[in-house]
Amino acid sequence: MKPSASIIQGDLQDQKITGYKSDLGVTQTQSAVLRGVRLQSGFTFDQVEVSYQTLGTLSAKRDNAVLVCHALSGTAHAAGLHPETGRPGWWDYHVGPGKAIDTNKFFVICSNVLGGCDGTTGPMSPRPDTGKPYGMEFPPVTVRDMVTVQAKLIEHLGIPRLFAAIGGSMGGMQALAWAVNFPELVRVCVPIATCASHNAMQIAYNEIGRRAIMTDPNWNGGDYTPDHGPNHGLAVARMVGHVTYLSEYAMTRKFGRTLQAPGTAEADDEALFSVESYLHHQGESFVSRFDPNSYIYLTKALDQFDLFGGEPQEEVLRRIKARFLVISFASDWLYPPAQSRELVRLLKRARVAATYINLETLYGHDSFMIRNPELDNVVHHYLDNEYRHAGAKPAGAAV
Amino acid sequence: MKPSASIIQGDLQDQKITGYKSDLGVTQTQSAVLRGVRLQSGFTFDQVEVSYQTLGTLSAKRDNAVLVCHALSGTAHAAGLHPETGRPGWWDYHVGPGKAIDTNKFFVICSNVLGGCDGTTGPMSPRPDTGKPYGMEFPPVTVRDMVTVQAKLIEHLGIPRLFAAIGGSMGGMQALAWAVNFPELVRVCVPIATCASHNAMQIAYNEIGRRAIMTDPNWNGGDYTPDHGPNHGLAVARMVGHVTYLSEYAMTRKFGRTLQAPGTAEADDEALFSVESYLHHQGESFVSRFDPNSYIYLTKALDQFDLFGGEPQEEVLRRIKARFLVISFASDWLYPPAQSRELVRLLKRARVAATYINLETLYGHDSFMIRNPELDNVVHHYLDNEYRHAGAKPAGAAV
Repeated sequence: MKPSASIIQGDLQDQKITGYKSDLGVTQTQSAVLRGVRLQSGFTFDQVEVSYQTLGTLSAKRDNAVLVCHALSGTAHAAGLHPETGRPGWWDYHVGPGKAIDTNKFFVICSNVLGGCDGTTGPMSPRPDTGKPYGMEFPPVTVRDMVTVQAKLIEHLGIPRLFAAIGGSMGGMQALAWAVNFPELVRVCVPIATCASHNAMQIAYNEIGRRAIMTDPNWNGGDYTPDHGPNHGLAVARMVGHVTYLSEYAMTRKFGRTLQAPGTAEADDEALFSVESYLHHQGESFVSRFDPNSYIYLTKALDQFDLFGGEPQEEVLRRIKARFLVISFASDWLYPPAQSRELVRLLKRARVAATYINLETLYGHDSFMIRNPELDNVVHHYLDNEYRHAGAKPAGAAV
Repeated sequence: MKPSASIIQGDLQDQKITGYKSDLGVTQTQSAVLRGVRLQSGFTFDQVEVSYQTLGTLSAKRDNAVLVCHALSGTAHAAGLHPETGRPGWWDYHVGPGKAIDTNKFFVICSNVLGGCDGTTGPMSPRPDTGKPYGMEFPPVTVRDMVTVQAKLIEHLGIPRLFAAIGGSMGGMQALAWAVNFPELVRVCVPIATCASHNAMQIAYNEIGRRAIMTDPNWNGGDYTPDHGPNHGLAVARMVGHVTYLSEYAMTRKFGRTLQAPGTAEADDEALFSVESYLHHQGESFVSRFDPNSYIYLTKALDQFDLFGGEPQEEVLRRIKARFLVISFASDWLYPPAQSRELVRLLKRARVAATYINLETLYGHDSFMIRNPELDNVVHHYLDNEYRHAGAKPAGAAV
């Protein structure tokens, strides 16, 4: 029932890509234990386990660290081939030797977020007191909490300060939170296809996903075993999410009204159109690698993210010392360019150095996940230029 | 847990509208039994029961019948107040004395579609042989089949020919099917916010809804009792659908990031934001009035609708004798104006008289369901003008 590779050219997650080669070869993921992590809610973890990957080499000056922040469904495995599954990392198109985020030049770090399910402490982790998974008793997680954990990880790695924080969607929110909450610790901020806070439509789509999970009888208030979880609900949530990541153009181009070929190995009894079997596949593939409770926690963090948190906007932005490259995609209707433009307007008003580009990519929100030479060029040159001039330009230089 | 009336100003379905008055007062729905209905699949019903409403008076010449075709979630109750629930009909804003579809002038007919669940034969109906509901053994239904039943109803009512067929979304597809499949029987065709066939995105959203229903354990292959059906799945399907009917502007204006007021009668324990409790309410309200299997059948009819059905487009359109008013909404991203423009282009090429207007309404696909004076004006004047000149203009006059 898998759609053919030719049809599903797209991002690198949840897809069977035959013959894909990564310039990084096989890459490993490591784990760190961080102690005493206090969350925005006041809850304090005695210890948090963090799964992370590093690529490239830290410079002698320790000034070339780039933190790559993953989106909702991402993992610590940003680039290179996974040692067990052989699958490429979610940003392998963009991270590697000579690529947009050049591992010949930068020391790239990517860690799974707090509340996630790829090795970092989250709802699936055992509670220290009972040894059973937290489930819905996991404390609420915010984007700022994710960044707090990342800051501790950076410290743990002996890195005094990031050169850059970069990411798309939820990753972009993390990059923004870095600039606002740890202004001394980041020189360059690259938020892609993101916003300062969700609008009603963005909340609505996430809530539909949560509702699909939480009304699945197997959810059971968040108390389930991995082999008997709310998988139908999670698959529906993923299908909803996935469609919002695509553009009408992309879907028309990929599928149109093509009927799936019956009787082949790829045929799916429950689908008539190719787009249907593709969505089924997306849902099922996601279920095999993602925790439903984690989906609930992370989407809530997204919906509740507010860069300004009720404070006067200009006051918040005046704290920023980083220089910004803000990127949006013209065809992204989930995180529409207007949100990025508004962010840039506020940054400029607060005299933060901000470059903005709205790329005419046709593939919707997904544009930062797929092969995208325009995005590569913009990011590569910006990082390159900023890094070359980093010595000359003090952090926090005005526009 | 009901959102306040002020927040949910919108279409007339699924909403508690306090103090709404209809110029039509209470209106009744009737039922007809039609014999020997043969479907596109070849399946023949010995008899089909049809629930319908008529408003206004048939002229002596029997030349003023306007068939109002309902959308996916619609019913036979188009306008006036329901005798039992007191709720206004789904198009009460637009149908009534002096309204866009003027019941002082036209004899308005609205019938529940074949495969529906508001009194017309559908998956909930008992099988003649077993007395049990058809469920998923109901024969596949197409938009053309819906129209075949309507044509039989018109005949049953002693109406030789429709003056007009009008409808939005699935209703617009029916209007199109009338013009193509019963060219002699309709003088004016008004398809609103619709298309000649679904694109991949439109199919995708419907498939997500179907998947939510069909993976609900209570669906049970379509074999369920009304009090123990796949209600969670249907609610999620409705939430997905509902969001696609709205525009980002409408959602931002209605809800923004407003938090629901806790501790009030309207509070919903499972919601933080107002938009969340609104969606929960939409889902629950829909479950109380719609059959999940019917939702599956009707969305499949939508996805499989193809006005041309594999025939050369121009040949199909050349059969048309009706004159067209095609309407789209600039903010409708589910049935984007480009689809209407393409339809009009094809109509014009086939020398069908077609007027096209893309209204700058800001409320998305829902724009045909809500109070919409611009839509009213356009429809009112077009119908009025066509009716006044109907005697002078023979049907099928070229542009």
